[in-house]
Amino acid sequence: MADKRSVGILIFPEVEVLDFCGPFEVFASARAVGGTDRFFDVKIVAETDEIVSCRGGLLVKPHVDFENTPNFDVIVVPGGAGTRVAKDNPAVLDWIRAQNETTEITTSVCTGALLLAAAGLIDDQPVTTHWDAFDELWGHYPHLQLKSDQRVIDNGHIVTSAGVSAGIDMALAMVERLLGRTLAEQTARGMEYEWAG
Amino acid sequence: MADKRSVGILIFPEVEVLDFCGPFEVFASARAVGGTDRFFDVKIVAETDEIVSCRGGLLVKPHVDFENTPNFDVIVVPGGAGTRVAKDNPAVLDWIRAQNETTEITTSVCTGALLLAAAGLIDDQPVTTHWDAFDELWGHYPHLQLKSDQRVIDNGHIVTSAGVSAGIDMALAMVERLLGRTLAEQTARGMEYEWAG
Repeated sequence: MADKRSVGILIFPEVEVLDFCGPFEVFASARAVGGTDRFFDVKIVAETDEIVSCRGGLLVKPHVDFENTPNFDVIVVPGGAGTRVAKDNPAVLDWIRAQNETTEITTSVCTGALLLAAAGLIDDQPVTTHWDAFDELWGHYPHLQLKSDQRVIDNGHIVTSAGVSAGIDMALAMVERLLGRTLAEQTARGMEYEWAG
Repeated sequence: MADKRSVGILIFPEVEVLDFCGPFEVFASARAVGGTDRFFDVKIVAETDEIVSCRGGLLVKPHVDFENTPNFDVIVVPGGAGTRVAKDNPAVLDWIRAQNETTEITTSVCTGALLLAAAGLIDDQPVTTHWDAFDELWGHYPHLQLKSDQRVIDNGHIVTSAGVSAGIDMALAMVERLLGRTLAEQTARGMEYEWAG
């Protein structure tokens, strides 16, 4: 498992549950056929190590806080109602920017794109977000090229995805890019997910 | 919101993350158009109130322990590697049986069906589970009528679903049954989930 990668999934108060649990499931369950070795080491990251109350009230204890995070190979920036507060939190934006300097891939799900934009990481390349947040993103960042016809937009270093469940498709697309189509299909099949990717 | 229902989602060590987070997302996000009132009050339940380490290491703090749970209208019994230990835990099986006496609907996702069978709640009616667990379930309970051609099997009081992501379809089907097709479709659209139900 020489190519084992680290994945850091950001959470914050009122983060949407499936936005981060979908990619968590994909990255944590990707493993070789018949084996138990994982291809990704997945950690949940938050500003502090205190329990975070997610949208709907799910209580999640982060693995690491911002001060103690390593440089992740992949980061996932999810969305949800809480992004409207998180986008004005310098600690969150600084963490995203600092990670992005060394990540292989920086991803967003849903209104996580708002955080990437607030951190200055997306500018005039094609991106996407939740269908119901297009006007809001354009309101803040009118130069964004928001696309509504794809669930995942892969610009190489930056990958954005549409709302909530589209984070599953995004993570599967990353498994495909990093480890091949066969493993991505196998991961989808293990989740019984009807992947159109 | 006179018809607000309570949903209790069981977790245990090594529970599969999407098995319970998928239904959590559906039930917690079902709300009236343009409104913020929720139709379901969703709680995570475990044997004790200590943090549970789920499959892949996600750390979740339960809202209530077995001793302090009310009688839920709907329970969700998820699956995952941890069901092989949970099925021999009398506290888990007693909790499921006691809840089932007063639930409107008792559901399982994935190998959660193994727990319903161990609790004596499913016998010879049609049920389903993860495709990779059919032989295991038949090995323990040869009388089960396991069906591989449906993601959700609704027997009224008992509803079982196929693996992992099929829990999303199951929860949407319950929203449809309890609150109507329009609200279920709207919930799926809010999650950008391509629901085939």
